[in-house]
Amino acid sequence: MQKKVLALLREAGDGYISGEEIAGRLGVSRTAVWKHIRALKAAGYEIESHARKGYSLLDAPDLLLPQEIQPTLRTQVIGKNMIHFNDIPSSNNEAKRLALEGAPDGTVVVAEAQGAGKGRLSRGWYSPSQKGIWFSVVLRPSFLPQEAPKCTLMAAVAVMRAMKDMGFSVGIKWPNDVLDDNGKKLVGILTEMSAEMERVNFVVIGTGINVNLWPEDFPEDVRDIATSLSMLRGGRVDRLELFARVLEAMDELYVSVENDGFGTVLDEWRQYSVTLGQEVNVIGVRESFSGTAADIDEDGALLIDTPTGRRRVLAGDVSIRPRKK
Amino acid sequence: MQKKVLALLREAGDGYISGEEIAGRLGVSRTAVWKHIRALKAAGYEIESHARKGYSLLDAPDLLLPQEIQPTLRTQVIGKNMIHFNDIPSSNNEAKRLALEGAPDGTVVVAEAQGAGKGRLSRGWYSPSQKGIWFSVVLRPSFLPQEAPKCTLMAAVAVMRAMKDMGFSVGIKWPNDVLDDNGKKLVGILTEMSAEMERVNFVVIGTGINVNLWPEDFPEDVRDIATSLSMLRGGRVDRLELFARVLEAMDELYVSVENDGFGTVLDEWRQYSVTLGQEVNVIGVRESFSGTAADIDEDGALLIDTPTGRRRVLAGDVSIRPRKK
Repeated sequence: MQKKVLALLREAGDGYISGEEIAGRLGVSRTAVWKHIRALKAAGYEIESHARKGYSLLDAPDLLLPQEIQPTLRTQVIGKNMIHFNDIPSSNNEAKRLALEGAPDGTVVVAEAQGAGKGRLSRGWYSPSQKGIWFSVVLRPSFLPQEAPKCTLMAAVAVMRAMKDMGFSVGIKWPNDVLDDNGKKLVGILTEMSAEMERVNFVVIGTGINVNLWPEDFPEDVRDIATSLSMLRGGRVDRLELFARVLEAMDELYVSVENDGFGTVLDEWRQYSVTLGQEVNVIGVRESFSGTAADIDEDGALLIDTPTGRRRVLAGDVSIRPRKK
Repeated sequence: MQKKVLALLREAGDGYISGEEIAGRLGVSRTAVWKHIRALKAAGYEIESHARKGYSLLDAPDLLLPQEIQPTLRTQVIGKNMIHFNDIPSSNNEAKRLALEGAPDGTVVVAEAQGAGKGRLSRGWYSPSQKGIWFSVVLRPSFLPQEAPKCTLMAAVAVMRAMKDMGFSVGIKWPNDVLDDNGKKLVGILTEMSAEMERVNFVVIGTGINVNLWPEDFPEDVRDIATSLSMLRGGRVDRLELFARVLEAMDELYVSVENDGFGTVLDEWRQYSVTLGQEVNVIGVRESFSGTAADIDEDGALLIDTPTGRRRVLAGDVSIRPRKK
């Protein structure tokens, strides 16, 4: 009902709608309307009350609330079910918990802040309140477990699409770092899965996007290697708009993957890649080596040409070597 | 302490050991010894008490108890940590729960009976009390998630080794069914995993072995397609011996996989296979077809020669077509 009251306030645009009209259209008492208005104000909505004209919505809170995103979200699967938290330890852990309890395909868990955000390889992810978009998506795909690691490339491509649409100049470093033109990191992606040999139970894709952080918001140890969209633009970026665009891009890619496989994802990844064609150093689990990043194969593995032949990298850290001047 | 008392009783073989000697060697009171003997009897151990000679172990219960298995188990990793249940819904679910709580590499969960044993593709697995070996192993391998599905081949090979060592004539049908010479099923294996893109959190391999079931023990709907070792032998089979041999074979294979990859597993799988060289029908997720099973590739996929070329099967049901006579 609160969502319906909010929808009527939005319908009125810059104008007013009377409590009587809201009550009439929703079939509730004026006291009920007043209670919902009070609850919306408590949630951060700025609503003017005018004795004669009624109510007018002046401003919405800067929160990634489902009622803000869902009404205009154009997706088939992702975000139909969305759960919002002000502060949780880790959106991935919460999403995994919900998935085990049966959360449907496309469930989104979003948090304003994470107390213990997780990155790849047991690294942390700094997630201060309302400064980024920290969210996880539960997928229940029909593809085989062997394909699931490519979900992380899919997520990187979705974020790239959304950022490019909003005018940012960014690129993907293998496998899934989204970087600015100076090679500073904007996005972290952590994909986890639960599977049987021949069937994926669920995939959880966690994505952290640095949106409105300023240099002083970063911990010192990442200040030199991380950046944010607000720092690139020199001003605040609309989190709600970006979040909706990312979810829409991810949804479109996911539907295409389910129907036709990962071909589109891999092609688009190649197009956005800043790794391919570069001299790279590979720090693998068992060994390190250097070479030229030539391509990714159908498994998403990075193919590297070395003096002793082509090598295939499925895991590890890859750093791009600065070009000699 | 109970384990130590049991060890001293076993040390005495067919002879006796006095309560005084047990008390002296373990540094406890004779009352404590008497209490441990009583507890062992309650657990099903048959112990004779003789006023002058002391205690003699006559028989151990037919239970897959860690204290029965671990003292003589020759493994490096698997079974060092072992948990026994009389009755649980599913050893795989219990193993996954323990793995999430941090259970170490090689943890074994074994149950005398499962109330809701799980098979592949959401099928059930009938697990009556003390009639089979229903167990799950938690592994924390260093290989990539893409390799994990081959654990199910590894488990099938381990079971094969153990059964052959005990004189049974059996074979493996792709991917992991262990069958008798008439094509009836003896073993079910269900492998599950939790992983990130580049790292396996844990693999749980659930194995159910039909040991001492008789025709009337099977539900009607599987009576024609399933069998047991006791039915093959025409007599009771030692569950403890078989269990120890399976764990030892699995341990040896696991250590070799961690050091040198799945090559040995795949070679041995080929050797035990009853599928290769046969005409087969494949019922896949999206389509069905027939052909000759030629080989498995390095991913464990079944390669099938069809009139239109070689096809690769990673999932689905494969049935062997009876040879025309």
